[in-house]
Amino acid sequence: MSETATIEPTPRSKVRRRAGRASYDRTVIDAILDEGLVAHVGICDGDGQPFVLPVVYARDGDTLYLHGSAVSRLLGTLGSGARMCLTVTLVDGVVLARSAFHHSLNYRSVVALGEGRLVVGEDEQRAALLTIVEHVAAGRSSEIRGPHAKELKATAVVSLALREVSAKIRTGPPIDDAADYQMDVWAGVVPLRLQAGDPIPDPRCQAEPPRYARSYKRDALSRVA
Amino acid sequence: MSETATIEPTPRSKVRRRAGRASYDRTVIDAILDEGLVAHVGICDGDGQPFVLPVVYARDGDTLYLHGSAVSRLLGTLGSGARMCLTVTLVDGVVLARSAFHHSLNYRSVVALGEGRLVVGEDEQRAALLTIVEHVAAGRSSEIRGPHAKELKATAVVSLALREVSAKIRTGPPIDDAADYQMDVWAGVVPLRLQAGDPIPDPRCQAEPPRYARSYKRDALSRVA
Repeated sequence: MSETATIEPTPRSKVRRRAGRASYDRTVIDAILDEGLVAHVGICDGDGQPFVLPVVYARDGDTLYLHGSAVSRLLGTLGSGARMCLTVTLVDGVVLARSAFHHSLNYRSVVALGEGRLVVGEDEQRAALLTIVEHVAAGRSSEIRGPHAKELKATAVVSLALREVSAKIRTGPPIDDAADYQMDVWAGVVPLRLQAGDPIPDPRCQAEPPRYARSYKRDALSRVA
Repeated sequence: MSETATIEPTPRSKVRRRAGRASYDRTVIDAILDEGLVAHVGICDGDGQPFVLPVVYARDGDTLYLHGSAVSRLLGTLGSGARMCLTVTLVDGVVLARSAFHHSLNYRSVVALGEGRLVVGEDEQRAALLTIVEHVAAGRSSEIRGPHAKELKATAVVSLALREVSAKIRTGPPIDDAADYQMDVWAGVVPLRLQAGDPIPDPRCQAEPPRYARSYKRDALSRVA
């Protein structure tokens, strides 16, 4: 899978507000996409009404894959080549400033624009579904039963090429007005992360939990609060 | 603030896929909205291209408030009365089934549809901004400097009435095909939650961190994995 190091922003994908927080670096973008678990996908109906729904996704090189029921409205629309926006947001912390105005969040987000494509070949469909399982729990796809023909038929897989894509990142402490630094109020960052608890076995399961369930992590790499 | 107990679903807000997971109960909807920190807001441009962006929001009774820069494209579009979709998703766990097909997430999500309204009165604008601060950190609004006139002018606040809104929830263990229960593979749920770490003081801050920063929680109420 060829990956370009930096994406050239288009007028649509160029970050306008707080452009200093923007990145078009695929290393940055891919790290956010690979850490995220849920994307929010937007589509428009014929009346200009947007719909935004959470979906599980996975990245394979320059391609994002989504899946859902073959009879779902969202997947049907996406699979027909509709314009879409896929956004992944990781919340890294609450930024508590001395003024209401400068409160903020630390976050890393990716916005990808484009048109969906229905995956029709069985090999790509099967590979995409296992990529999604691996994205959710690395190591799991080899231990479970893969999809059989009826399940493949019931599942729609849609791909989105990573072409018009940008990242936006905020890190660090609050930036207050000069005069406010003398205020006697605590200011700083409360770091946040999606953290796993102890695995809860299915009541009908006798097996021991695997390592990826016992120490489940989304953020394999270092994080910045 | 009057709140109706149950929202009558419209053709647009009615959950079609997995309708058994749907709820139109305002108690359920409000609990999800109040626990969430970031919403994903969708708008459509004139070409039918959706844009989905993460925003901080807060609920006050039957109204959701968003805010942003007065010169932001998103807030400008929303404030002009554009159709919007605001989605909040809480990820509660990874559901590891015995087959790829039955893998899932436990989650609670809310989808709200409607048209934005720019908040123009200073009193409502000021109240909305403090509601957002309180949503991020309950107790904080009384300790900080409130917005002055120039900051209010630089900030756009948009409201969305909670009219067309639905929740969708998945809880519990994986539901596998009968034949797969004999497989010798671990199955169950890895619970996930947005968890706070130790507060990181601003380098220029001498004050002691307040309780809401030392034991920051989004999920005041009980959660189901």
